Amino acid sequence: MADTPNGSDAAADTREEIMDATYRALCEHGYADLTMQHIADEAGKSTSLLHYHFDTKEDLLVAFIDHLITEFEEVVAPSEENSPADRLREYLDLWEFAPEEDERAALHLALLELRSRGPFNEAYREQLARSDEVLRSTVADIIQNGIEQGVFREVDPAATARLLVATLDGARTRQITLDDPEYTRGVRDQLEEQFVEGLLVDGTDDTTGKGQ
Amino acid sequence: MADTPNGSDAAADTREEIMDATYRALCEHGYADLTMQHIADEAGKSTSLLHYHFDTKEDLLVAFIDHLITEFEEVVAPSEENSPADRLREYLDLWEFAPEEDERAALHLALLELRSRGPFNEAYREQLARSDEVLRSTVADIIQNGIEQGVFREVDPAATARLLVATLDGARTRQITLDDPEYTRGVRDQLEEQFVEGLLVDGTDDTTGKGQ
Repeated sequence: MADTPNGSDAAADTREEIMDATYRALCEHGYADLTMQHIADEAGKSTSLLHYHFDTKEDLLVAFIDHLITEFEEVVAPSEENSPADRLREYLDLWEFAPEEDERAALHLALLELRSRGPFNEAYREQLARSDEVLRSTVADIIQNGIEQGVFREVDPAATARLLVATLDGARTRQITLDDPEYTRGVRDQLEEQFVEGLLVDGTDDTTGKGQ
Repeated sequence: MADTPNGSDAAADTREEIMDATYRALCEHGYADLTMQHIADEAGKSTSLLHYHFDTKEDLLVAFIDHLITEFEEVVAPSEENSPADRLREYLDLWEFAPEEDERAALHLALLELRSRGPFNEAYREQLARSDEVLRSTVADIIQNGIEQGVFREVDPAATARLLVATLDGARTRQITLDDPEYTRGVRDQLEEQFVEGLLVDGTDDTTGKGQ
């Protein structure tokens, strides 16, 4: 906000720097071995400054998941220009990453470790549930929109969204844990072929040159 | 084997007891905190006996994943009596577990931690890849069989199997990490409704009373 006092601007900048440093520290050290010192080193700041902003490592990681959710929401903000089918394909694209994107694989491995702590940590679990809700509602909205426009068949948007998110999450988990760079791409191609095409009311997809 | 010397029988029994103890110890302590002492305590044996059979905790856990794969292969051994559609539904059932099955959720959480070590541990990664191969080939065989019998549409069995395994794995991961007991069931219902039904050549499923 333009009228935020300078002090708050600086605090927001510092938090942003800490988030970026947390990203790099998680990629490098994973979740289990991560310390506040690692994050401070990446940020080029003292651990006491980190503790001024976040009481504990847990608080910092809860803020980091929140930060990832906010970034995701910015990326998937609906574009009025694209058809529902294209928006669905773009959503599938978001989950795929290339073999050479080592940092992204490392981040998701660290997040997988953190996620496995969910049942034992209420603050993590609440953020993970919010992330799940955002991932599902984003794609449910695209499907709902496609149905309303008459381009998608009448399916249950919420149940279908849950299916899609589970599929993409499972593909990514297998890609990173098995170190199989083609897993997500293979699953994504099948989703496009067997799922997105099946969702389309015949001849309504004006983006692929089919029909009409 | 009937002609195995008694000594080997006893060794096989001991290994089986260690596997059962590893199951319980993983459920109770998770992967990261697991020690040979925990497993020895669960088995009612000494850690030196454990080390006689397995040099390291890593060796023991590699044997444990192998043990889980063997158990899975026994459970899914093809039954000639069931139709491909029923065998596919039974396969989906295998992944689902009820909210009250706490031990199973705990085991899969521990395995999720272990899986996140896959990229850093070649022995784990090899076993995880073998597990993935068995999970995928089992369902690919069912699909292939259904196509040969003319009850399933002509799809790519291997690619479809990868899609299904990713979906079921993702649903289970979200169920256990979000502590949401209905995730897998919800996804399984969608798979049955949108996927298995779509795979059937019209009117060929003689098990649900439809068609004919």
